[in-house]
Amino acid sequence: MARFEVLILGSSSALPAYGRHPSAQLVNLHENLFLIDCGEGTQSRLAEFGCKMHRIRAVFISHLHGDHYFGLPGLLTSLNLLGRTGPLDVFCPEGLEPLMDEILRLGQGELQYKIQWHTLVAGGKKKIFEDRVMEVFSFPLAHRITTFGFMFCEKPGMRKLRPEKIAGRAISYETLKKLKAGIDVVEESGPTYLFSEFTEDLPSPRKYAYCSDTLPLHGLVSIIREADLLYHESTYMEEHLEKAGLNYHSTASQAGAMAASAKVKKLIVGHFSSRYKLLDELLAEARAVFPNSELALEGKKFEVGG
Amino acid sequence: MARFEVLILGSSSALPAYGRHPSAQLVNLHENLFLIDCGEGTQSRLAEFGCKMHRIRAVFISHLHGDHYFGLPGLLTSLNLLGRTGPLDVFCPEGLEPLMDEILRLGQGELQYKIQWHTLVAGGKKKIFEDRVMEVFSFPLAHRITTFGFMFCEKPGMRKLRPEKIAGRAISYETLKKLKAGIDVVEESGPTYLFSEFTEDLPSPRKYAYCSDTLPLHGLVSIIREADLLYHESTYMEEHLEKAGLNYHSTASQAGAMAASAKVKKLIVGHFSSRYKLLDELLAEARAVFPNSELALEGKKFEVGG
Repeated sequence: MARFEVLILGSSSALPAYGRHPSAQLVNLHENLFLIDCGEGTQSRLAEFGCKMHRIRAVFISHLHGDHYFGLPGLLTSLNLLGRTGPLDVFCPEGLEPLMDEILRLGQGELQYKIQWHTLVAGGKKKIFEDRVMEVFSFPLAHRITTFGFMFCEKPGMRKLRPEKIAGRAISYETLKKLKAGIDVVEESGPTYLFSEFTEDLPSPRKYAYCSDTLPLHGLVSIIREADLLYHESTYMEEHLEKAGLNYHSTASQAGAMAASAKVKKLIVGHFSSRYKLLDELLAEARAVFPNSELALEGKKFEVGG
Repeated sequence: MARFEVLILGSSSALPAYGRHPSAQLVNLHENLFLIDCGEGTQSRLAEFGCKMHRIRAVFISHLHGDHYFGLPGLLTSLNLLGRTGPLDVFCPEGLEPLMDEILRLGQGELQYKIQWHTLVAGGKKKIFEDRVMEVFSFPLAHRITTFGFMFCEKPGMRKLRPEKIAGRAISYETLKKLKAGIDVVEESGPTYLFSEFTEDLPSPRKYAYCSDTLPLHGLVSIIREADLLYHESTYMEEHLEKAGLNYHSTASQAGAMAASAKVKKLIVGHFSSRYKLLDELLAEARAVFPNSELALEGKKFEVGG
């Protein structure tokens, strides 16, 4: 199966602690690399984990709190020093483009590649990126400032022909194409070709949902339903439920409940508060509600649908 | 002797490489902590080396290239999360204050402590900070954009009375004070007190000079003369002399020559280009010109005058 995986680069909330770093994840979807959030030090994390940052195709920034983007200016200028010439797409809330312009003006530097800025807009789930193999959607979260979640979706691929079925038959190119697209064909000359007979079933297209910095939001359930992998922030544990609410964050238990309601396959919890040195109890709390939960440990890679 | 030391937090030039991080140093002068430059990840380096960032009294930013300040927004917001209420002095070139204001506006955050911004101005050596025990001066360097060096100077302290000399004598408080200040006293009643007899000689006040991102600049010699410790950038080696000149940087050999001309006691070279994995040859080059040279290795502490 084509690669679709998520590498955790940062797992801390606003105040880095215990060797944890602020939010960042690298998505590899069919060998296309996408960065989600870019906390301070992300470029060093990428180097540490042996990722080639020049291969990043697009960056998605969920919101403009520093722990989600203070590493972006450094990453963008390092890409320039590495000789990037191809354009880079950056999807982010309003305000980051002029800020980056000002940073470049102050340093009297100019990038040798083009940043294609895409301003995220509020109001429901929106398709923000699409190519041959995938689509990315943004959707609103409920945080202190405008914040977006992201959903990375594989497109259904073409079905694979069964060699033993087509061997020795004179089947036209047009018919083969239809069968691969999942269409039955009745040829004028007589024979009927059922795609289910002549092609192999495809694995279902996979989905990864990223929900960072949000109150538990009932409206999310329909958006992230049946995702193969869900990242949902869990800054706090239930004992700090009130603090979570005041700061527009979620608890591990609430993240687990969200995963259960949306019937996702696996949950990753992250964005850990600096008050927790050890994370075992936080994980136990999520698992009590949703057993297939894991911690967003830095350097850990999660296969989507794996 | 009271503490006066420099801890290297970052040693790389613009592109971090081989586990090296961009420029930052922590100066401890008589238990007052000062941060010089603040490359991306500085707050993590401080934590790694066990430094209490809430104890930092002032920050000095040499210039507005990202590898010297991209860690500052994160540091300033983390200090806020740590509950700082006392003011923080930030000395920097023009432009950083409005940039930081915009970053706070985008995050809809407000600091609970006051940043006292001090804009550095060009035109020779200027005293920018002074208290009971020390003075800090800024001076211009020769880089692609406006860049400043800094000199941290201990003030001569009060001389220490020799207990065996004053024991059993009726010497007035005023006379003791003058002796401690290095003044001889002839009392009306007859006795003459020589400060050299009644007090111990003081160690000479120590000086640390920080010269980051600059061409070798002859005018520096008079400013940094006889510094106990000099940090001078050496982004390149002599084999890349032309590149150094084009990028407004220095070679290790040039840094050594500067240390020799200025008759400093010890030289630290740093701001290493990402083209050098190993630094032995770079150090050898500096030492060939100025034997008492050391590499700015991260985590290494240098005693000023030690």
